[in-house]
Parts: sequence; C-alpha cells; structure tokens
Amino acid sequence: MTRYDKGANAERELIKMLDSRGFAVLRVAGSGVNPLPCPDVVALLNGKIIAFECKARKGAYLPIQKEQMDEEVSWAKKAGAIFVVAWKIPNKGWLFISPEIFHLAGKNYMLSLDNAKKHAIDLNVIIGQQSML
Amino acid sequence: MTRYDKGANAERELIKMLDSRGFAVLRVAGSGVNPLPCPDVVALLNGKIIAFECKARKGAYLPIQKEQMDEEVSWAKKAGAIFVVAWKIPNKGWLFISPEIFHLAGKNYMLSLDNAKKHAIDLNVIIGQQSML
Repeated sequence: MTRYDKGANAERELIKMLDSRGFAVLRVAGSGVNPLPCPDVVALLNGKIIAFECKARKGAYLPIQKEQMDEEVSWAKKAGAIFVVAWKIPNKGWLFISPEIFHLAGKNYMLSLDNAKKHAIDLNVIIGQQSML
Repeated sequence: MTRYDKGANAERELIKMLDSRGFAVLRVAGSGVNPLPCPDVVALLNGKIIAFECKARKGAYLPIQKEQMDEEVSWAKKAGAIFVVAWKIPNKGWLFISPEIFHLAGKNYMLSLDNAKKHAIDLNVIIGQQSML
C-alpha cells in the first residue's frame, strides 16, 4: 500500500467513526495541494465543529510541518473549531492529540509515541459524548 | 470549458468571496462521488456554519436532484449549518437561494430564474455581515 493509500484509508476510517457517532462529516478536497490551508476531515454536530489533521504512520515519532500545523490551528481558531491531530498507528489503533503537546524541532512539530500515548484523549471525550475520567 | 471546469471555477470563485469576508472556508472532497452526502463548500466563522451547494448554469431553470438536495439539507440540519444554493450565472453573477424556494418536479427540485432573482438573498446578509433591507 502506498503512503497515499494509507493516508486515504485512515481518513475513511476516521470518517466512519465520526459518522457512526452521529456527526455530519466531510473530507476536505486537496489537502496538501489546496491553496487554502485547512484540515483533512471536519466533523460537525449542532454547531460544534471539530477539525482533524489525520496522519497514518508507524514509528516512534510523528513529525508535522510547522507551517502546515500553524496554518491549520489558525484556520480552526477562525472557524470556532476544536483542532485535533488524529494519529493512526497501522494495525494498532488511533491516538487523538491536542497540538499543544507537540514540540518544535526545526521546521517540524514533533511528538514521540510515548508522549502521544500519555496525552491522548478518547475520541468520545473530544466529541463531548463522554466526560474525561 | 467543460461542465466540470465551469463548476470547479465557480466553486473557487465562491471560496474567494467567502475567504475575503473573513471566513475559514473549505471545499469538500468528491462531491457527487462521495458516499457521504455533503455540500460543495462550507464556510465557518466563530462557530457559525454555512453550507453551499454550488451550481454554474445558464438558462431559465435550475434543477437539483431531489435525493441530493434532501440529503444535503439533512446534513446541514445535523451539522447546525445554514444551507444555501449558490447559483452562478456565467458572465452575470451569483444568486444565493434558500432551498425552500424550489418546487418539486418529478425527481428534481426546480427553480426558475425569475423566482431565483425575486427570492435571492445578498451574500453579506447570509453570512450575517449586513441586515436584510
């Protein structure tokens, strides 16, 4: 499977998870090539807006380009959306992480898998269908 | 220009109009081929959500498939979004119309150009940056 396929499959899986929880969901066109910086997937319910940057990646670290993440965080702020990084670890599962947990390393924001596991938030908490334990 | 190009150009023009008015805007991936029914363009600002079905078409009537419009209206209701049909008349301009103005004719909702002109709402009113006169 190519890197593109893995990413597209992860997006589809995330969309199904959100759809099954009652959200109106959309996949954003041309993430990456779009002149407008925006997230990959947006979930909406009764005016609540959650924007997801979706990454499928094995390995001990997740890098996200600084410029891309900064623009997406600004986009979400303007929209009035919660912004979440959705990290799919192939054959393992999902980690949902707030962008503040990343640290800057040159041109990228970086996050270790250990830190991601420590700070991950349950999807049902993010979407407001369960309280934080 | 193919029909697809005309549609894509109209979408890009609408996106620019909304972006210049301060909205966080996104183009939805694969309208038409998407298994999830959703609008073409969504504009968001501080939690306000406006979903657009965007059509570029010359002629005295605008038809929209009943099933498509019904699904998009449901999508918008679930999202907590205002739903608007954005009709671009090539080389003339835009008409923004509420779906209630259309009437059912077989498998399509239909709207005449005359009725569209009569009931069109200014974009600045829709986005809440100007009151209805």
